[in-house]
Amino acid sequence: MIQLKMSNFPYFLVDRTKCLNNIEAIALKCKNQNIKLRPHFKTHQSVEVGELFKKFDVSSITVSSVDMANFFANNGWTDITIAFPVYPQMAKSINQLAASVKLGILFSSLKNLSKTYELITQKVDVYIEVDVGHGRSGVQTNNTREIAMMLSFIEQNKNLSFRGFLTHDGQTYKATSATEVARIYKRSMCQLGGLKQFWKESYPDLIVSYGDTPSASTIDDFWGIDELRAGNFVYYDLMQNRIGSCGIQSIAAALIAPVVDINSSRAEALIHAGAVHLSKEFIKNDDGSECFGLLCPFNASTQEWGKPFENVYVKSLSQEHGVVAFDSVNIPPFAVGDLVAVLPIHSCLTANLMRHCTQFVR
Amino acid sequence: MIQLKMSNFPYFLVDRTKCLNNIEAIALKCKNQNIKLRPHFKTHQSVEVGELFKKFDVSSITVSSVDMANFFANNGWTDITIAFPVYPQMAKSINQLAASVKLGILFSSLKNLSKTYELITQKVDVYIEVDVGHGRSGVQTNNTREIAMMLSFIEQNKNLSFRGFLTHDGQTYKATSATEVARIYKRSMCQLGGLKQFWKESYPDLIVSYGDTPSASTIDDFWGIDELRAGNFVYYDLMQNRIGSCGIQSIAAALIAPVVDINSSRAEALIHAGAVHLSKEFIKNDDGSECFGLLCPFNASTQEWGKPFENVYVKSLSQEHGVVAFDSVNIPPFAVGDLVAVLPIHSCLTANLMRHCTQFVR
Repeated sequence: MIQLKMSNFPYFLVDRTKCLNNIEAIALKCKNQNIKLRPHFKTHQSVEVGELFKKFDVSSITVSSVDMANFFANNGWTDITIAFPVYPQMAKSINQLAASVKLGILFSSLKNLSKTYELITQKVDVYIEVDVGHGRSGVQTNNTREIAMMLSFIEQNKNLSFRGFLTHDGQTYKATSATEVARIYKRSMCQLGGLKQFWKESYPDLIVSYGDTPSASTIDDFWGIDELRAGNFVYYDLMQNRIGSCGIQSIAAALIAPVVDINSSRAEALIHAGAVHLSKEFIKNDDGSECFGLLCPFNASTQEWGKPFENVYVKSLSQEHGVVAFDSVNIPPFAVGDLVAVLPIHSCLTANLMRHCTQFVR
Repeated sequence: MIQLKMSNFPYFLVDRTKCLNNIEAIALKCKNQNIKLRPHFKTHQSVEVGELFKKFDVSSITVSSVDMANFFANNGWTDITIAFPVYPQMAKSINQLAASVKLGILFSSLKNLSKTYELITQKVDVYIEVDVGHGRSGVQTNNTREIAMMLSFIEQNKNLSFRGFLTHDGQTYKATSATEVARIYKRSMCQLGGLKQFWKESYPDLIVSYGDTPSASTIDDFWGIDELRAGNFVYYDLMQNRIGSCGIQSIAAALIAPVVDINSSRAEALIHAGAVHLSKEFIKNDDGSECFGLLCPFNASTQEWGKPFENVYVKSLSQEHGVVAFDSVNIPPFAVGDLVAVLPIHSCLTANLMRHCTQFVR
């Protein structure tokens, strides 16, 4: 398959200093509470950004696919958890990879496990994924019968070492304040605490692995967890800003896009930033309209961006076009040919789309 | 920048026979009416799919970026229109490319043109983009003053040869029937006809270039246009099916994804097909819920897919997870470990995300 490689504009710009600050804040909290930080690398999918974590003694990582595990294994990472339930077609790659790195995998139900557990022929760490209310995947924490059956299957394959329970509490992504995140966290921890208590007798070393950026960012006391797997915090984005996980100034990555045209009568501008760059993720403005990104002034010499322009946002996207609405009473704060920085709604998706044309500053 | 390469599952599967049928239908209509087909290659971004068009004597193409123009130029295409307004940062690449291929570019307003027209130092064909009501970019067709000023600027640079007016009528993507598309088409043609009539005296060879898949697919008599630039029709998708552009059986590309888990009590399944594979584009189900794709049975031996399962759809996406809702009164029509074919909502965005792991059948 011959492939198209993107270059020129737009490009994705990562501010190393902001990344380091974001990593440091979470890494310190974990260190002070003796919690293992196993950051999720799906957000950045970048060797260079991965290296930044090493400054904070991170040596264990999370990824979301076996391809991503292979990628980071090929770049020197040797302790990797694939936080996506195993399915039969993954088994071959898992066995190959587990021969050279310490690999963690997870099963999300008895149905999921029973199809795959016999196919694993290399030593791996195994987690049972539990669902604390998000409703995406995992066993209910109070489903003791199913968990017991899963454990009994796991014990039948000597290559599988049960390490503990793992959950992603996606409920916090719907929160709109730190207080709400704290409430969700507490509810989850009550479930996970009971679960750990129950199984600790049989598995004294089992851990609770937990991960989502809103909790990682807003909770100070990580009671109830042994391992933290958040990932988005390395860049943050407007969705996390809305939840209360970060200030706007902590957002560490932006799409650098040229202003293509300005239509003053409609109070709109056209920028080269479309769905293939930003993704179609949006948040709602106060008036219910959709917002696909916020625009900031960009200094091309220093490659730094400033605070977002007031009342300027990306109102719609097609494949390569971004239509920007600006305040009609003001002159637009940019001209055709200027570069602007677009803060992404969901940095994981923007970074994934732009991973072939990412640059770094500072 | 070291890059992650995707492999294994999920993968994007293109049915060559369906593509050929889709291309043939449009190519024949154009041929019979002596209209030039300049298909938009942004949909597939694929050398292999590009080759299929050659069977129907297509030698002129449309792309949406200078990078894409370079890509297809490097793969033997020599007559390329970049259907995205030029901005200053594109000029260098345009000049390089125009030295070796017949290149068409477009200006979307006087503001847009005045920043760039002097930077073009190689012979190029120039189009003025007009807006027939979509409201994304282009001059209003009745803004004679602005068009006249643009033409006078164009004439000041001897490298710029004015070829005609170009428009993308995105209004048809909001239509829900062929009748509605026909109404929009007629309204657009009335504007474009008047425009052509007015400027034909000064530019007797000027053309009207028009392009959108709903019109291309549902209009039989392409009155009023000289060149057709549609692109999506090569694959089609569920959005086009909803508009009435195609039957479900004409959709020529699908994401092949493994079933990871089944939760019978919630009547949900988990598949390995997330926002990084399908994109976050959705359509609404009759009950107002969001649909991110439809599931079809998939025959792994023949690599062919069947008609969509009834009442089974992708209800939500995270980065790699797709949650599928199925009819709770039925046993799910698949098991953990099965492969399913997911028909995309917007094939352009899915193809873009999956362009590094595309396979072909038939």
